[in-house]
Amino acid sequence: MPARARLDVDERRRQLVALGLELFSSRAYDEVSIDELAAAAGISKGLLYHYFPTKRDFYVATVRAAAAQLVERTSTPSTGDPLERLRMGLDEYLDYVMEHEKPYSALLRSGVGADEEVARIVDETRDALCARLVEGVPLEAQGPLVRIALRGWLGFVEAATLDWLDAKRRVKREKLRDMLASVLMKAIESAV
Amino acid sequence: MPARARLDVDERRRQLVALGLELFSSRAYDEVSIDELAAAAGISKGLLYHYFPTKRDFYVATVRAAAAQLVERTSTPSTGDPLERLRMGLDEYLDYVMEHEKPYSALLRSGVGADEEVARIVDETRDALCARLVEGVPLEAQGPLVRIALRGWLGFVEAATLDWLDAKRRVKREKLRDMLASVLMKAIESAV
Repeated sequence: MPARARLDVDERRRQLVALGLELFSSRAYDEVSIDELAAAAGISKGLLYHYFPTKRDFYVATVRAAAAQLVERTSTPSTGDPLERLRMGLDEYLDYVMEHEKPYSALLRSGVGADEEVARIVDETRDALCARLVEGVPLEAQGPLVRIALRGWLGFVEAATLDWLDAKRRVKREKLRDMLASVLMKAIESAV
Repeated sequence: MPARARLDVDERRRQLVALGLELFSSRAYDEVSIDELAAAAGISKGLLYHYFPTKRDFYVATVRAAAAQLVERTSTPSTGDPLERLRMGLDEYLDYVMEHEKPYSALLRSGVGADEEVARIVDETRDALCARLVEGVPLEAQGPLVRIALRGWLGFVEAATLDWLDAKRRVKREKLRDMLASVLMKAIESAV
């Protein structure tokens, strides 16, 4: 394939993924049909299948893009008060979740089925977030329990956030965020 | 069906579930065949299907029994120092997980597929554990954030435990247990 045509395919894929992010942000995987995706993109079903052989391929690409967005959005300046940076990161995380409530719930409840590739993306995203969090821990204190504490804390964040969404957010985001931040501080303190 | 025959069926089912608990405790769902289950029970495949129409029915019954065991085993005396009782309950929890490492990992990673009934059992088990934990919180302090904190903490326990198992338990059980206990105390303190 000539370089130019290849570039066009990549660019077209990116555009379709951007559209997928939009459509899947308010509705679950099962609720969006291929017909609707093609119609929204203004292309035929046949052409959509040319870029993504199956609906699941398209969905996986969308999940991968959403994960990259989440990691990007929650990154904070590398200087400044650690607690303040943590709270900023958590604000971004909770904002992102509120904007993508449906796919967030579906993904973390495995509502889309046991798709190994999706599970791997979720796990790699947790790794990326852990890698960032561990930067805040002094190198000499980074024993095996610290990694367990960070993974545990992400489990706390996810479970608490799901419950918060279910409870129709009867709790202010700031209160949830502050609790999440205190728990991380305590977890690291107990682990080093 | 006469009452006596009915009783026999129930009793036979219980025996088969006990066998399932044993077989599934060391191996994942996919690794145990119906042939093997029938052979281990000393009955024909046809008879096994009489008690459980599908392998999944049998598996679901086993998961339900395992969940009940876990809730039972982690119950502690209703009097005494709360922190001490929490640590006792966590010791039992981690012991149980160590004895059922494979199904625990498979279940919580949704490795058995998106089985709604299994997912519901997992969720009801979390509810039962939360209900017990909330007893330790003064009634006037049981706002909506407390429930979120407890569900979040269970997410912490599960994610940390999975990571601890993956890390081939390079961390002593007691250190993990103490971290889990401190995190719960902090989570409740932040939530009330």
